[in-house]
Amino acid sequence: MPARTSSPSCGRRAAMSESLAQRAAALDAADELAGARKLFALDEAVYLDGNSLGALPAHVPDRVADVVNRQWGQLRIRSWTEGDWWSAPERIGDRIAPLVGAAPGQIVVGDSTSVNVFKAVVGAVRLNDDPARTDILVDATTFPTDGYIASSAARMTGRRIVPVDPADLTSALGPTTAAALVNHVDYRSGRLHDLPGLTAAVHEAGALAVWDLCHSAGALPVGLDAHGVDLAVGCTYKYLNGGPGSPAYLYVAERHQASFDSPLPGWTSHADPFAMTPGYEAADGSTRGRVGTPDILSMLALEAALEVWDGIAIETVRAKSLALTDFFLECVDAYVPAGRVTSLTPAEHASRGSQVALRCEDAPRVMETLTARGVVGDLRRPDVLRFGFTPLYVGFADTERAARVLAEVLAG
Amino acid sequence: MPARTSSPSCGRRAAMSESLAQRAAALDAADELAGARKLFALDEAVYLDGNSLGALPAHVPDRVADVVNRQWGQLRIRSWTEGDWWSAPERIGDRIAPLVGAAPGQIVVGDSTSVNVFKAVVGAVRLNDDPARTDILVDATTFPTDGYIASSAARMTGRRIVPVDPADLTSALGPTTAAALVNHVDYRSGRLHDLPGLTAAVHEAGALAVWDLCHSAGALPVGLDAHGVDLAVGCTYKYLNGGPGSPAYLYVAERHQASFDSPLPGWTSHADPFAMTPGYEAADGSTRGRVGTPDILSMLALEAALEVWDGIAIETVRAKSLALTDFFLECVDAYVPAGRVTSLTPAEHASRGSQVALRCEDAPRVMETLTARGVVGDLRRPDVLRFGFTPLYVGFADTERAARVLAEVLAG
Repeated sequence: MPARTSSPSCGRRAAMSESLAQRAAALDAADELAGARKLFALDEAVYLDGNSLGALPAHVPDRVADVVNRQWGQLRIRSWTEGDWWSAPERIGDRIAPLVGAAPGQIVVGDSTSVNVFKAVVGAVRLNDDPARTDILVDATTFPTDGYIASSAARMTGRRIVPVDPADLTSALGPTTAAALVNHVDYRSGRLHDLPGLTAAVHEAGALAVWDLCHSAGALPVGLDAHGVDLAVGCTYKYLNGGPGSPAYLYVAERHQASFDSPLPGWTSHADPFAMTPGYEAADGSTRGRVGTPDILSMLALEAALEVWDGIAIETVRAKSLALTDFFLECVDAYVPAGRVTSLTPAEHASRGSQVALRCEDAPRVMETLTARGVVGDLRRPDVLRFGFTPLYVGFADTERAARVLAEVLAG
Repeated sequence: MPARTSSPSCGRRAAMSESLAQRAAALDAADELAGARKLFALDEAVYLDGNSLGALPAHVPDRVADVVNRQWGQLRIRSWTEGDWWSAPERIGDRIAPLVGAAPGQIVVGDSTSVNVFKAVVGAVRLNDDPARTDILVDATTFPTDGYIASSAARMTGRRIVPVDPADLTSALGPTTAAALVNHVDYRSGRLHDLPGLTAAVHEAGALAVWDLCHSAGALPVGLDAHGVDLAVGCTYKYLNGGPGSPAYLYVAERHQASFDSPLPGWTSHADPFAMTPGYEAADGSTRGRVGTPDILSMLALEAALEVWDGIAIETVRAKSLALTDFFLECVDAYVPAGRVTSLTPAEHASRGSQVALRCEDAPRVMETLTARGVVGDLRRPDVLRFGFTPLYVGFADTERAARVLAEVLAG
């Protein structure tokens, strides 16, 4: 265990705690997103794991019950033709679009993130269509499924994977680069990568940029269209609160859609799916990214969940997210003995996502105790405590409490 | 319109109807599956589209509400670690296994059928691992997504597709065959193909047999293990009543699992997924067929739906299915003027699935009117009326009524 270089006295700590608690109350009182919390089913716990599984929006159960009882149970097959099932993938994609800075018609919902990474990376290589471009650069620090799937995409398109740290991406780019796959926010450290700058650098090298938005969509502005991103994927069960394992999405920039050549050309991506012709003809637009029959229960639960975003600007969410993580780091710094934890989260706002990751020698025990005491984050083995800050339902008093309980657990 | 070669007189038709209605009542009274109907949410309509979307099992809404409200809403992230979410793909696969004649540990649930076709066909080519075997034979009569996806699998493994009618499959097999993909029951005609015989022929040629069970699982015995099938896929929203677009499944025979090399090696198929290591190491067993995070809402709805099969033998279902389709064909023959419709469904039991397909010149109008009159089948463009017989909730009186209303609509 690191030596405690300093440790506030009991009296001093109580005074700090009062002061930070007062600050928290004032910040909550001024928070223009404070009203969003009532849209969610929450209890007295401080839920700092919305970056792993978003909380349940309170109106979703009734909507799911309608899908199950009426749409499936009563209308049955008629819901495919008369209801709003068939077009759900594109319709829900268009609902996600403004949250990630995309115009309508470019995002389609369905499948898992991993399956969409496969479509996107193979699609990027084929859009590039230059056998001299042998390399797919993959964020070596990212959530590993991206690397596993990109390796398969490389193998199946005659390319090779080159793992790179995003910090070294620009220098790794060159005439042999076909595409680069980068995670916008690192799942472990919470580091936010420079999407505009890296996308421009990738384009400068004549390659395509594929972004994984799992840890940024719903937490901060992405600006897919504004920054000329080529393809992107993301999940919907973190900051978008779509439910456990809810369907992921694929973004194909409009300029690429006519040439997008999916490796998974399932029947629902056909130009005329119900003709059921032996020959495949790809649909136009985002529909080309569909594969099989849409998973309606999960998809319509997600659609309902997205309604909590009505009237909320992602810029407001970002401002609160940074204020929350700043405040959490400040509280941790005040309450936790120096050296007991080490923050992996960048101090500068431009490089910070919406989570705080603290390295801690006895992280498994600490997270278990924290959870039992009503502060729910998660553990990334072997030694990282992750705390996700979801501005729609986490407040400043929650944040102060989380840091205070953390300090108590670390002292225990 | 074909000439009416004969047409029963009014009086004769009424007598026939009475007689067939009496027969139906007797058959229903003797039906050992009659009690299963009360397990489903049904109304007065005759629902003959369970081969497209199975009816809602009556207990599923409460189970889904529990998944949403308690497991997601209250336990939140704890359901992944403390609940039964993580192992759902294998656990539900093992629940499907006895229905298709598979021992436990060989079926994993997740993704769409199309995605699983991709895994299975690429997997078969790689298991075969012989560059001289350039051909993937694909059932040319099947639901087209199989052909579309198999074409992509061929393109990405340096093979080629050879479309064949299953009737010609045996003669098309040879030293260049890598694998054959066949639909067990044709989605349009309802023809049942000879799984044991064709699998043996494929093996005789040194190739691998991949079966699509979408239209057979839950309707008739499949015998995957007994007949030595190599790989199989199927959907769960037809005869398995899993709900609209519910997750599909992949069967990899135990003898192939250690060599099965998935083209979609997502993080949940890793031997130690939470180690989140950069290098991929495939899990053992059916887990190797997983890809991304399981779609919990849909998956647990499916799990609940499968409980209607408790205590029901698939052989009993098959016997009733044949009795129902026999009886329907008999009623159609009795009620419908000769030549007005043509059955595409094989008369011999060994070649019949659990549906009856009738070709009819004005099929779109007929199906629309039938549906409005409470007999729900579906249309396969341009001229096929499909009637699916799901033995768990369709009875003989339903069947007689469907044929009688059909005759009235055809006469209208």
